[in-house]
Amino acid sequence: MPSRRELANAIRALSMDAVEAAKSGHPGMPMGMADMAEVLWNDFLKHHPGNPGWVNRDRFVLSNGHGSMLLYSLLHLTGYDFPLDELKRFRQWHSKTAGHPERSEHPAIETTTGPLGQGLANAVGMALAEKVLANRFNRDGFPVVDHMTYVFLGDGCLMEGISHEVCSLAGTFKLGKLVALYDDNNISIDGQVGGWFNDDTQKRFESYGWEVISGVDGHNAEAIKAALVSAAIDPNKPTLICCKTTIGFGAPTKSGKESSHGAPLGKDEIVGARIALNWPHDAFVVPDDIYAAWNGHEKGARFESEWNSLFQRYQNAHPELAAEFLRRMKGELPAEFAAKAMAYALKLQQDGPVVASRKASQMALEAFGPLLPELIGGSADLAHSNLTLWKGSKDVNRGEADGNYVYFGVREFGMSAICNGLALHGGFVPYDATFLVFSDYARNAVRMSALIPAPVVHVYTHDSIGLGEDGPTHQPVEHLASLRYIPNNPVWRPADAVESAMAWKQAIERRNGPSCLIFSRQNLAHQARSEQQVADIARGGYVLIDAANGNPDLILIATGSELGMTVDAAKKLAEEGVAVRVVSMPCTQIFDQQDAAWREQVLPNACRKRVAVEAGVSDFWRKYVGLDGAVIGIDRFGASAPADRLYKEFGFTVDAIIAASKAQFAA
Amino acid sequence: MPSRRELANAIRALSMDAVEAAKSGHPGMPMGMADMAEVLWNDFLKHHPGNPGWVNRDRFVLSNGHGSMLLYSLLHLTGYDFPLDELKRFRQWHSKTAGHPERSEHPAIETTTGPLGQGLANAVGMALAEKVLANRFNRDGFPVVDHMTYVFLGDGCLMEGISHEVCSLAGTFKLGKLVALYDDNNISIDGQVGGWFNDDTQKRFESYGWEVISGVDGHNAEAIKAALVSAAIDPNKPTLICCKTTIGFGAPTKSGKESSHGAPLGKDEIVGARIALNWPHDAFVVPDDIYAAWNGHEKGARFESEWNSLFQRYQNAHPELAAEFLRRMKGELPAEFAAKAMAYALKLQQDGPVVASRKASQMALEAFGPLLPELIGGSADLAHSNLTLWKGSKDVNRGEADGNYVYFGVREFGMSAICNGLALHGGFVPYDATFLVFSDYARNAVRMSALIPAPVVHVYTHDSIGLGEDGPTHQPVEHLASLRYIPNNPVWRPADAVESAMAWKQAIERRNGPSCLIFSRQNLAHQARSEQQVADIARGGYVLIDAANGNPDLILIATGSELGMTVDAAKKLAEEGVAVRVVSMPCTQIFDQQDAAWREQVLPNACRKRVAVEAGVSDFWRKYVGLDGAVIGIDRFGASAPADRLYKEFGFTVDAIIAASKAQFAA
Repeated sequence: MPSRRELANAIRALSMDAVEAAKSGHPGMPMGMADMAEVLWNDFLKHHPGNPGWVNRDRFVLSNGHGSMLLYSLLHLTGYDFPLDELKRFRQWHSKTAGHPERSEHPAIETTTGPLGQGLANAVGMALAEKVLANRFNRDGFPVVDHMTYVFLGDGCLMEGISHEVCSLAGTFKLGKLVALYDDNNISIDGQVGGWFNDDTQKRFESYGWEVISGVDGHNAEAIKAALVSAAIDPNKPTLICCKTTIGFGAPTKSGKESSHGAPLGKDEIVGARIALNWPHDAFVVPDDIYAAWNGHEKGARFESEWNSLFQRYQNAHPELAAEFLRRMKGELPAEFAAKAMAYALKLQQDGPVVASRKASQMALEAFGPLLPELIGGSADLAHSNLTLWKGSKDVNRGEADGNYVYFGVREFGMSAICNGLALHGGFVPYDATFLVFSDYARNAVRMSALIPAPVVHVYTHDSIGLGEDGPTHQPVEHLASLRYIPNNPVWRPADAVESAMAWKQAIERRNGPSCLIFSRQNLAHQARSEQQVADIARGGYVLIDAANGNPDLILIATGSELGMTVDAAKKLAEEGVAVRVVSMPCTQIFDQQDAAWREQVLPNACRKRVAVEAGVSDFWRKYVGLDGAVIGIDRFGASAPADRLYKEFGFTVDAIIAASKAQFAA
Repeated sequence: MPSRRELANAIRALSMDAVEAAKSGHPGMPMGMADMAEVLWNDFLKHHPGNPGWVNRDRFVLSNGHGSMLLYSLLHLTGYDFPLDELKRFRQWHSKTAGHPERSEHPAIETTTGPLGQGLANAVGMALAEKVLANRFNRDGFPVVDHMTYVFLGDGCLMEGISHEVCSLAGTFKLGKLVALYDDNNISIDGQVGGWFNDDTQKRFESYGWEVISGVDGHNAEAIKAALVSAAIDPNKPTLICCKTTIGFGAPTKSGKESSHGAPLGKDEIVGARIALNWPHDAFVVPDDIYAAWNGHEKGARFESEWNSLFQRYQNAHPELAAEFLRRMKGELPAEFAAKAMAYALKLQQDGPVVASRKASQMALEAFGPLLPELIGGSADLAHSNLTLWKGSKDVNRGEADGNYVYFGVREFGMSAICNGLALHGGFVPYDATFLVFSDYARNAVRMSALIPAPVVHVYTHDSIGLGEDGPTHQPVEHLASLRYIPNNPVWRPADAVESAMAWKQAIERRNGPSCLIFSRQNLAHQARSEQQVADIARGGYVLIDAANGNPDLILIATGSELGMTVDAAKKLAEEGVAVRVVSMPCTQIFDQQDAAWREQVLPNACRKRVAVEAGVSDFWRKYVGLDGAVIGIDRFGASAPADRLYKEFGFTVDAIIAASKAQFAA
């Protein structure tokens, strides 16, 4: 039977060998955390290498994602479908072993990590998901939702501000099944951390209401084990285990130094490490007895089958709950959702409410919320501005079965990264909200929603200078365009209540990535549409009003709050005999994904007299109006004044649209 | 003599009246913090209303900027050139009293605040500036740099992650002259904070190495005074004073509630508040004796004249230091800088080094650093990747006179907001650095650099899929375009060492706003240029290689690492007889600011066969190539593989440029 140290050394050897083969990568962290990983994965983590999708598995997140070879080694050694060839192809084109763990490369990679702090935030989201689902589905004697969430993290994660946001929330939410293991190696990329990182981390986490186990020797299996046992004791406190480790453990001259962090050790150092670690095997060779000791299939199958029999009894006792649980964990929407949501949009089209689109968003929540028990969300302390509360909202922190609302506090970045974790866990359709301008604070988490991908609905209200008096710090200008440029991130800017409902419908139904929903502070006019036009909203761009002969000489394109004035301008132009078409473009990216025929039908290539109108940076719209068209946009910071005044001062008026349109004919 | 409470009530009355007149705004905070403000400003703050630019004034930052009426009231009452009419025009077009304090509206507004947490970060930057300048310029008996930095903040600032980043650093940097006053009113916008904010804030700040004075009655002037006296005692610890306050103090039914936070109190409530506060005066009326007690001119003039005589003696004893100090505080660059920097660029043009542009950036630092003692900067724990260290770099944290390098740790957002504070304080040209993709983490601080404006140089390296193996989490795709869309934020993406030097030169010389400098990980070819062309780099876009006859049929536009392959493609096309021009466009925004003649000269309107090449989102370039041109860009997330492989797989090759060019003629 191999020793625990030998088991850990398999991780060390695979990691240094793979980094060496790739000629790039990070050996220091896997070599430093190998002992912690060995104890956690072999003695604690309940998972099944034969079924990475087992819903009640413990979640494991590698927040210090640069140490990806640690995770890849674990997946390989414990017997996942993760062959040695993949390790040999570390960081190569089309390998599963990307430089940082990529969720989309393998189902056993719980999340994509690398941007520091966000894995920790995802883990908080997963632990919150577990808690809320347990409150909802568990019954006496049937703890069908009952798993731990473990997260590895390093100094970098703890320095990042997001760690403050999410750990403060984790304490408030009493996430007792969340255990973070801190690689306290005193080294970050610039060297010994003392010059820039002197927090008393124990004290800091105690201030958040965490249990902290400090001073654990991260190379002593028994000490690690004892800490992990203690971590599970208090059900109301998340636990931080601070393990003193040596980065690059085993490397003869580079261990304990930043030189082992982010570059191959080099041939000689690896030879020395093999001697120091007493690991005489060739590169990428792991002896059979070590493979056997690591293999997690038998144990994993037992974990899963125990849960399966529990779940079977649960199914018998609570068939509807069980079916609902399975539906939600599969990420399937209720069968009737699409039809009911469409019916709601069509009814709105008839009713024609004139409301702010943020209000229309809340109306959509009221309409769709009762259909979607999986809906969970909240706002970064702007509930009554973002209008994210609906009648069915119940604070998850009260611990009741119907919890579905999260008071995130003023923590935009943490909020969005937690929502990514909720989505990754399964069982939820998460939404979050803040003012559009503060999407900046969350920006990399929004990018991660798209990259992972995690189907989160990001709600952003107060979407332009139309928010008025709060002034330029609060007025988005570049944000619409900037969000649209994130790949796989459809941005909807609806023009009235009907488009708002359709945008929510599309966002909820989109299961392979996030959506951003952009809403106004101010009231928006209702637009007339046929039933077909209501359906066409889902295409992202459609003809709202056509030239009388269907053959426009001029096309006006608008979104959101600027559609109303554009329609008014078009009507006046039509009265003057201009063959003008109005295109509503609530989602440019979805429009771009339509087939060429649709795009040509909406924006005929031959018609080059085009004017786009949007209260955001103008250059974005050049892709639709070209060099010869015109854009009415705003290319400076806004100002503090009532919204009506700002619209006039910045040139968003019917007259300005008419003037720009006429100039197209003069040109 | 009016009582202290009466003095504070003047703030309360002006604030509620102004919000009422504006029909929008935030009365709760000014009414809650009025007593704290009164004690600080009347008994401690060393400032001179007659000269807001006095360099050794204490700095005061309102980090909870929504309480802007507090600051406007203070400026008005203490006698700054800030007339009552401005208060009456709160939140109106072209008033100085924007919804949130705007630096550009009045010199006594030390920084623009509103985006929570960032004012606190700016204050940390100002306190760091004071400390570094004191180390540099003070001499025995001549403490010419010796002032406090005070910052007001609320629950929102403390929830934001950036508060963790910058307060951790403030502790490490031992910023003993930084005093934060916390408005501990237990209320945020969503209500009682207990449901989402339960930090033990005292413990948290002690974990950062701060002195914390807790449980101060924020409505008891003597208690506030005692705390402020204590705060100054320990020269090595920043101080947090936690004041228990009542939001909307004085409002009969709304005090202590979130309803007083962000909306006018209403007529009846204001009548009630006047009674409760015993403030019988009409709206906007402040009795003469209260004005007299508040007036800070005499005291301020004394503070300044005492400092002036100290400085005069210093000038006599240390004339060169004094001149240097004044030059730096005026923000004037050394007289010889422009010429020497230009000479350096011209020499590089002759030498023709083939290096990564991040290396070229470091070479520029080596060349310009010795000329610029005001240069201060660092990296978010990526010094050896961003190449931000140069031979003259000295850690500011060692406290020596030549400190100019900041080890920011893994704190991108805090870093950039601290740099804004360094710039605002005066005496510095700050730069910061991280990977381009992690500009996301700092994004709103970058926006604030542009909005304030604060002349900070943001250095972003590893600028594309060219970073290779680290994979999509680390590969910027949308970032170039997104940063360019921030108003007043020139983004330079140089194509070789010469353009890199010119970009640094432009960024350093730009005193009215920030610049982003974007550098490659990988080596870049050197391009041939005339002296005139080297100078023309400063125009943002210029003709690098023209068609033989000067009358191109095809224009290729490229930036940064894609210029080299574009030049190669152009040469082949020229050999085949195509009249092709290559435009290098290192900074699109500066190019857009050139006069029409220059723009027409570089990109003649008549030539519509255009191909743009950049390893970023393609749609951005439609503004230069129109609907009919072509863009070679990347509109998906990248991948983990060696850079050369990625360039080929994603279609950035000479052949692809030639094919796209030929397709222009086929069309």
